[in-house]
Amino acid sequence: MTDSQAFQYVCQNAQQAALLHSSADLLEWDERTGMPASAGDYRADQVSCLRGLAHQKRTEPKYRDYLEELFQNIDSKYEPDRTSITVSQLYRDLQRDIKLSTAIVERSAKLTVKGQQTWDSARRNNCFEEFESILAEIVSLKREVGDRLREDTQRTRYEALIDEYEPDATVEQIDELFNQLRHPLVDLIKKIQGSEKRPKRELFQQALSVPIQRQLSRDVAAAIGFDFKRGRLDETSHPFCTTLGPHDCRILTRYDPQDLATGLFGTMHEAGHGMYEQGLDPAEFGLPYGSYCSLGIHESQSRMWENQVGRSQSFWQWITPILKDSFPDQYSHATAEELYFAANDVYPSLIRVEADEATYNLHIIIRYDIEKKLIDGNLNVNDVQDEWNARYHSDLGVRVDSERNGVLQDVHWSAGLFGYFPTYTIGNLIAAQLFHSAQNSISNLEQKITNGSFEELLLWTREAIHKHGRSLNSDQMVQRSTGISLSPKYLVQYLSEKLETLYDL
Amino acid sequence: MTDSQAFQYVCQNAQQAALLHSSADLLEWDERTGMPASAGDYRADQVSCLRGLAHQKRTEPKYRDYLEELFQNIDSKYEPDRTSITVSQLYRDLQRDIKLSTAIVERSAKLTVKGQQTWDSARRNNCFEEFESILAEIVSLKREVGDRLREDTQRTRYEALIDEYEPDATVEQIDELFNQLRHPLVDLIKKIQGSEKRPKRELFQQALSVPIQRQLSRDVAAAIGFDFKRGRLDETSHPFCTTLGPHDCRILTRYDPQDLATGLFGTMHEAGHGMYEQGLDPAEFGLPYGSYCSLGIHESQSRMWENQVGRSQSFWQWITPILKDSFPDQYSHATAEELYFAANDVYPSLIRVEADEATYNLHIIIRYDIEKKLIDGNLNVNDVQDEWNARYHSDLGVRVDSERNGVLQDVHWSAGLFGYFPTYTIGNLIAAQLFHSAQNSISNLEQKITNGSFEELLLWTREAIHKHGRSLNSDQMVQRSTGISLSPKYLVQYLSEKLETLYDL
Repeated sequence: MTDSQAFQYVCQNAQQAALLHSSADLLEWDERTGMPASAGDYRADQVSCLRGLAHQKRTEPKYRDYLEELFQNIDSKYEPDRTSITVSQLYRDLQRDIKLSTAIVERSAKLTVKGQQTWDSARRNNCFEEFESILAEIVSLKREVGDRLREDTQRTRYEALIDEYEPDATVEQIDELFNQLRHPLVDLIKKIQGSEKRPKRELFQQALSVPIQRQLSRDVAAAIGFDFKRGRLDETSHPFCTTLGPHDCRILTRYDPQDLATGLFGTMHEAGHGMYEQGLDPAEFGLPYGSYCSLGIHESQSRMWENQVGRSQSFWQWITPILKDSFPDQYSHATAEELYFAANDVYPSLIRVEADEATYNLHIIIRYDIEKKLIDGNLNVNDVQDEWNARYHSDLGVRVDSERNGVLQDVHWSAGLFGYFPTYTIGNLIAAQLFHSAQNSISNLEQKITNGSFEELLLWTREAIHKHGRSLNSDQMVQRSTGISLSPKYLVQYLSEKLETLYDL
Repeated sequence: MTDSQAFQYVCQNAQQAALLHSSADLLEWDERTGMPASAGDYRADQVSCLRGLAHQKRTEPKYRDYLEELFQNIDSKYEPDRTSITVSQLYRDLQRDIKLSTAIVERSAKLTVKGQQTWDSARRNNCFEEFESILAEIVSLKREVGDRLREDTQRTRYEALIDEYEPDATVEQIDELFNQLRHPLVDLIKKIQGSEKRPKRELFQQALSVPIQRQLSRDVAAAIGFDFKRGRLDETSHPFCTTLGPHDCRILTRYDPQDLATGLFGTMHEAGHGMYEQGLDPAEFGLPYGSYCSLGIHESQSRMWENQVGRSQSFWQWITPILKDSFPDQYSHATAEELYFAANDVYPSLIRVEADEATYNLHIIIRYDIEKKLIDGNLNVNDVQDEWNARYHSDLGVRVDSERNGVLQDVHWSAGLFGYFPTYTIGNLIAAQLFHSAQNSISNLEQKITNGSFEELLLWTREAIHKHGRSLNSDQMVQRSTGISLSPKYLVQYLSEKLETLYDL
């Protein structure tokens, strides 16, 4: 067998595994959009079966042998090309996959599907106790997974888990980035709290018909570039984006009949994720060039559309007349300026996904610190809630009023996603840094946004990020697109400039 | 390994195959409820992959060996019990499965998913030509499948295909049943056409808000016994019922804003299918006791609720006040008698699924005759349309006005379902015969229906049919429940009595 035949075999095998994973993803999408209440146990078995088969495919002996040989044959004298990068990335995955048995993959899939079902019910019942024992099981499993994954590496257990979401990231780097970010943010928030100038919060928080919000969200997602021929927009309790095939990206949002921000920004956020997925090479679905780079990069795409675009002055100049058409009773007298200010209402609150841009990262840092301790064994599951509440009081100055609005608010831990939270703040940092570059590259970007013309920005991200798939890690990707390594200064600068002006600081 | 261990292994293996099939069924359900337009090719690959893996599971060497041994060990001295029946039925499946290769199963899954996509588009474009070449491919594949399946049997090619839907049925029996049915039906329809008495068709055919129809359909489905905790009701272009797990039955209907019958009877029909699925033993999902007996029996459950219940005088006494509440403008002056008559509006028409009970079976006989010739090689695909149109003229006296309302109206052939159509009329025959028995067993059944009390009838079918799964073939099932073999006389008698009274014949 020639290298070229071996390469073909390896790619086919990886793409077959993707057929199984994407089918399992549909099972999970369906579970969260309307699966009948009693179907949960069997659904967990279905997902577990498909994830297990995918793991078998991705670790089968012939695949391992061919990939090993292809990897050894890469000649480091030459610049990496598409083939050698594909081989290196698949080989990297293989090193992770073979550390796990199919049994642990199946167990993990089943436990986390059950975990999400239990979390959903516990959240509805506002009862952390209902969730506690399965959370303990999940933490124990993820500790085991982390221990397996860190073998033959210098990583800590938690770092080994992060690597799945943010390849090559280290706790040291993340700690440093977060520390550099925390103090300027805390200062900025304090100054804003001292300001006399406040937005009219009631512009967003008033009765707004859900069917009209739904249409508006759909129109906005289409306007910024989400392709509905290759995707859908649905509703769920905890918004997300999932990709079920090279031309099938599903974004999910939720609407609050008393709040414009939830649906509108939620949709723009998920549409940002969706447009990234839609910008990957369809022919390489299941292969590195058809895969996202990292969750930090993914989040940068969602946050850029939600924040740098969606909470900008130019965006509100564009959308205000549309909003007046949709909701004449509510907005006929509102100005674009007032709405822009309301979209940037900064105040410490309990709920991460509804937090403003400045306080948002403090929510993430709390979760990051807690989950790091939890996985590394320095915190017990039954102390999580106290730790959570104490940190919300010390870091954000708010008192947690209910378990639903506290430790039960996020789906992640129930889904076993430890190591995922820091990627949100990494994404915020990347978004600010990328947008800064985009502003330098695209002439009159603000004016274009005011005119509702978003194509150039989307095309810029396609060139800078999307088309490269997972050929680089996120830090390399950021360096290539912006010229320098990831730095908190762009986010700090962006937030300070915007908020100091709005709040007269 | 003991017989009991081997039995456990065999059952586990069959249930694992069901995990894969039911996941593929979700992929198909999703395709028909809202998959993005461009996702079709990849979806076909996903379905094909899962169907292929399921076939591998159901034919793997260890499974075959154990099952073979268990089957040989069945001691015919004893009455068959649950274990021996399970073994016999799985062994029967195996004899079919091993005649097909995994490659042909994958090819077939892919081709029929593509077939349905092409049909859907051709139907929208009203263009049979667009569909013709893939239909020819499907026919050619099904001929090949039929040839493989008939090996070592006395069956014809078409009969071998029927066997998948109606185990043990023969063309001879079906021909005889259909011939016995055709003449009394044709006579009855002629007499009705000669009658001066006509229902007020406009009671059904008027503007009726779809959201209100949707709520009404949901309420009716729940009232007759469809369990929404274990199922859903959705919308699609060609109604169907699919089961995605032991507690996850999905029924799909469609609404016509100008016709009450489409949504209401469509929902009752699919709810009948759904209640059958919900009546199977959940613990035996994927095994014979957790599977439906045959499509004829399945159809009897849907037709009984749609027709014997839904088009009965007592049902209209129950539903008329509900209908007046839902649609006061349309029905405040209508009487239960008028609506009952309108629900039994008999006239030859073009569309099978909207046909009345009397002409319905003539639609089936046309399809049965055509597909039998097509599979056995006595008709070419490019002659199908002419044959179709000629038969509609000769058998029903109507002129086909468009391809959409003619040969393109049904999804079945595009899905490779040759041998499926005759089960509709078999189902009608069984429904009439079962309902006749139910009337003898349940005191005051009509009065109970008038009161909206449907539980006893559902429980009767649970005992007579559902709980037995696929432990018998349909003819044995009918004999056990009604005391005699399947006969057309019950359907003829039921229709004659009802329609002669309504039309003053």
